[in-house]
Amino acid sequence: MPQVVIYYTPDLEADGAMPTLCRTLADAMLTVRDEAGAQVFPTGGVRVFAYPAAHAAVADGSGDYGFCYLNLRMGRGRSAAAQQAAGEALTVAAKAHFAPLLARRHLGLTLQVDVGDEVFDAKFGNLHPLFQNKKG
Amino acid sequence: MPQVVIYYTPDLEADGAMPTLCRTLADAMLTVRDEAGAQVFPTGGVRVFAYPAAHAAVADGSGDYGFCYLNLRMGRGRSAAAQQAAGEALTVAAKAHFAPLLARRHLGLTLQVDVGDEVFDAKFGNLHPLFQNKKG
Amino acid sequence: MPQVVIYYTPDLEADGAMPTLCRTLADAMLTVRDEAGAQVFPTGGVRVFAYPAAHAAVADGSGDYGFCYLNLRMGRGRSAAAQQAAGEALTVAAKAHFAPLLARRHLGLTLQVDVGDEVFDAKFGNLHPLFQNKKG
Repeated sequence: MPQVVIYYTPDLEADGAMPTLCRTLADAMLTVRDEAGAQVFPTGGVRVFAYPAAHAAVADGSGDYGFCYLNLRMGRGRSAAAQQAAGEALTVAAKAHFAPLLARRHLGLTLQVDVGDEVFDAKFGNLHPLFQNKKG
Repeated sequence: MPQVVIYYTPDLEADGAMPTLCRTLADAMLTVRDEAGAQVFPTGGVRVFAYPAAHAAVADGSGDYGFCYLNLRMGRGRSAAAQQAAGEALTVAAKAHFAPLLARRHLGLTLQVDVGDEVFDAKFGNLHPLFQNKKG
Repeated sequence: MPQVVIYYTPDLEADGAMPTLCRTLADAMLTVRDEAGAQVFPTGGVRVFAYPAAHAAVADGSGDYGFCYLNLRMGRGRSAAAQQAAGEALTVAAKAHFAPLLARRHLGLTLQVDVGDEVFDAKFGNLHPLFQNKKG
């Protein structure tokens, strides 16, 4: 369940380089290690979805303000250290990605990590088996 | 609050038959019964929203991997058995829907059920009254 | 973290006046005050994202039913009174917005307020500093 969903104002579709951001964040998730040095997120479960809003409003509307909200939902049972490592890896990657844009425009950026609290969980695709053979 | 949101990679827009999936999942929700045989989800509250991502990244990017994540948010106060029945009904329906696609491509599929933990809840439309008359 | 995400059936894109709704809800959030009369949501953090589904299914599909679900995610640490005030302000605004539409068609409307339970939270944009100077 290492899933990032990115919500953003439609103006960022032109200058946010979102396809690149998706790959960058997926790669960042794959680098996260726990205290024992093991990969935290199984490769076959990592995904990033980017969604430009069709319409949006930011702050008091007094200027040309963009916003990008990044949300990672991860599974239960990981250590607090692994949760922090995940948040930090994504933040480092997102900060670097948006640095040029931040230098020239007004942009809100928030990244949060949620731990899923689901009461039912089913995985029935064929990606996990594919990568388990590769040991991911 | 029986709401399904479907997040998926844009490649599935062409071959995922998503309009059909929406109806199939809504119908599946309407079949869910509790231990007493009563309909768990009021008809007027059932909705499914399908959102193809504008951009996405899956796994390590080494192949043509699709992903579809299905999330049901349901209200509090239902029994654990009703929660499991809901998850299972949706999973059976989604598995059947995606079986042909799974047979010919790489696709991650995850379905989770969350129980809402909202601090405020307002319903102010006219669908619930419509179906309460029909007893739904 | 005063973020509203609006999910809605695609038919509302034509007659839901969604750009107006976004601004209206952002303005409503800015009016919310706590027991001490202080602004609950910092101006630079307020955002509303509206997402028409690409595909949807509502109720039993027997009629032309639309649905709009509005979700506010707010940060922890606010009083229960502030949470209720936020929900009520948004509900009043959304009710007024949708009243003409409700008078002529079938439409489900639900608004919920969630309090974030994130394990990691990073803000690294330049909107908050902009408005903190203005005291927002």
